[in-house]
Amino acid sequence: METFLARAKKSKQVIATLESASKNRLLGEMADALIVQSAKIIDANNKDMESGRQNGLDSALLDRLLLDEKRVGGMAQSLREIAQLKEPVGRVLEGWVNSDGLRIEKVSVPIGVIAVIYESRPNVTSDVGALCFKSGNVAILKGGKEAEHSNRVIAEVLQSVLERNGLPKEIISLLPDNSREGVSKLITMDRFVDLIIPRGGEALIRYVSKNASVPVVKHDKGLCHTYIHKDADQEQSVAIAINAKCQRPGVCNAMETLLVDQAIAHEILPKLYAAFNRQNTRLLGDSEVQEIIEVELATIEDFETEYLANILSIKVVRNLNDAIEHITKYGSGHSEAIITENYNAAEAFLERVDAACVYVNASTRFTDGGVFGFGAEVGISTNKLHARGPMGINELTTYKFKIYGHGQIRK
Amino acid sequence: METFLARAKKSKQVIATLESASKNRLLGEMADALIVQSAKIIDANNKDMESGRQNGLDSALLDRLLLDEKRVGGMAQSLREIAQLKEPVGRVLEGWVNSDGLRIEKVSVPIGVIAVIYESRPNVTSDVGALCFKSGNVAILKGGKEAEHSNRVIAEVLQSVLERNGLPKEIISLLPDNSREGVSKLITMDRFVDLIIPRGGEALIRYVSKNASVPVVKHDKGLCHTYIHKDADQEQSVAIAINAKCQRPGVCNAMETLLVDQAIAHEILPKLYAAFNRQNTRLLGDSEVQEIIEVELATIEDFETEYLANILSIKVVRNLNDAIEHITKYGSGHSEAIITENYNAAEAFLERVDAACVYVNASTRFTDGGVFGFGAEVGISTNKLHARGPMGINELTTYKFKIYGHGQIRK
Repeated sequence: METFLARAKKSKQVIATLESASKNRLLGEMADALIVQSAKIIDANNKDMESGRQNGLDSALLDRLLLDEKRVGGMAQSLREIAQLKEPVGRVLEGWVNSDGLRIEKVSVPIGVIAVIYESRPNVTSDVGALCFKSGNVAILKGGKEAEHSNRVIAEVLQSVLERNGLPKEIISLLPDNSREGVSKLITMDRFVDLIIPRGGEALIRYVSKNASVPVVKHDKGLCHTYIHKDADQEQSVAIAINAKCQRPGVCNAMETLLVDQAIAHEILPKLYAAFNRQNTRLLGDSEVQEIIEVELATIEDFETEYLANILSIKVVRNLNDAIEHITKYGSGHSEAIITENYNAAEAFLERVDAACVYVNASTRFTDGGVFGFGAEVGISTNKLHARGPMGINELTTYKFKIYGHGQIRK
Repeated sequence: METFLARAKKSKQVIATLESASKNRLLGEMADALIVQSAKIIDANNKDMESGRQNGLDSALLDRLLLDEKRVGGMAQSLREIAQLKEPVGRVLEGWVNSDGLRIEKVSVPIGVIAVIYESRPNVTSDVGALCFKSGNVAILKGGKEAEHSNRVIAEVLQSVLERNGLPKEIISLLPDNSREGVSKLITMDRFVDLIIPRGGEALIRYVSKNASVPVVKHDKGLCHTYIHKDADQEQSVAIAINAKCQRPGVCNAMETLLVDQAIAHEILPKLYAAFNRQNTRLLGDSEVQEIIEVELATIEDFETEYLANILSIKVVRNLNDAIEHITKYGSGHSEAIITENYNAAEAFLERVDAACVYVNASTRFTDGGVFGFGAEVGISTNKLHARGPMGINELTTYKFKIYGHGQIRK
């Protein structure tokens, strides 16, 4: 692995200094190559689907794994869209002249070698490879075992374009050792790797965070709350709550716990009950909720659980403070919302809730790079440092200071 | 320790939402309190000086440890200056309306609980405490054993101001367990601590980076180079080289290795030799240098060493590429300089050298938050993520997205 990583590190300078037009042209060529090679990609994917079925993957996972003509076309389209994003490297973030007459510029530069660990969907291989490429980084990709054949062929297709253009193929490559041991080794290789982005299960992320000496930007769980304040528009509240829970329950920005203000609990809980029943949502609630509507009892463990399913915990809170306290205790710092018409409550919630995204009168489901307008999403960071919340390609850059002098020495 | 850290975490919300005027008033009160209590501080410092002498600390370390009336005055002055810095919390870094009509603001917020590990100089206790306070963070301070008494009294003085104003004293506090085991425990407490900044020896930093599950912003070594290009102004080159090495050899932004272009080596090495001899610099050089001036042989180990002393390794390089290759191999990504009158060489060096600060025609000694104009310096980060190079108080903040809706749900 060290030989491979040394080569990856060596190719850093090549991609970091590649000009924007060249990068975009190559992304276009990669898109073309995916289309041209789509039969080969789909063949490889068939093998993965076959072993998936044999290993008893459920239908949702099999669907995520599947590639057909249309999905390969989508992957190519995604590369063309990434090519059209604004160049992330070389932005002058700040610039000034200091008291010594030094002209100082803070300029965005690639991070270097980025390793991304992800699961099932093979389109991530081309997406993340292209996002790293566009932002001038070397990408080391570690996909799931279940998509091994698909990922290998996709990476080979992208690499063939690199090599045809005289670039080292290590600029986009799969981790050679696709095992757990491979990951264990990778995350300690801070001499070669500048950043690790684990996307996937909680256990993986926990393991990587605990054991990595390479810096990690986590894409951890979203235990998101919506708080219906006493001065909320109740019709709006129900619509937002339904959307936050039911529009796509299996994702990190879906709501897991609904907090209802005591002052309006008797009035709004029956409305929520009716609306969620129409969505077949399994409802749990604390004892105060149980006094008003017929639901299972929610335990502390429920309030700690990211269901990723059409299940909702409900809790009655005394007031804004109580709501914020609950969120501080159980929230994962991902996305939190208040529904209120009250200016002071909105301001206090925005100020005091410590999360990547804090909403007033909107569904937490909007936490998304594409929706935010970033053009493409690398993921949603639950880190507080470097990047927080939705990450676009700008978040795959760091900066350096360029200092222009004319002979200055320090006194 | 967990009880202490839980209290520290709990006080996060208090300091994070404290208004600017209150923070600045309190910093002023802290400055006053340091002056009022200076006799007590100096008493405590006497104890540290006494044990320092008994433990055989050298005179440089003893000088760093010493506090007298004047130095306590300096500490107070530093707090007043920190109070006058522009408020780092609540800056709107970006703002836009997305296609759903959501108003999105990216706003700077405190990081949370920051632990800083540092050595000898007790003024760091009040400085770093104040910098964290100003940026709305809880500070956990772990100073050196040698300054234990001084640090304890300084922290108590700052805490007395917090308590007098009804604030929890945990907002600025010393790590209760000041041992190596205490640090080992602290760096795994990611449930409570948001960031660790180790300032100090290479071994400490390495240990923290390897074992921390809390994110780390390193203040690591500076193995800085100056490359005298063939088209350099030679007089300027000598002046810059002398400044970069000799003005203060014991700091991270001092030059350790001088790279001299082959094309001018015969001409400039004798001038450098004379100038460095006047500074009593111990010179080492590779075999090509030895052919021109009389110096000890520099080994590979020398090129890997941060001397932090009046010692310089010199190497003859064939050209710009060769210089960049050497810097890529041996540099620590801190500060690197080229001396040249050649536009293309300057541009290529600025582009291709991967370091926090890259200079043209200036001394690397300028890498400093104060010199850059940040007002106060937290340190110089050798991380690539979150903060790189000189860190001011803005680098002690992260951001969150505030999203203002009017009932939007995701389609």
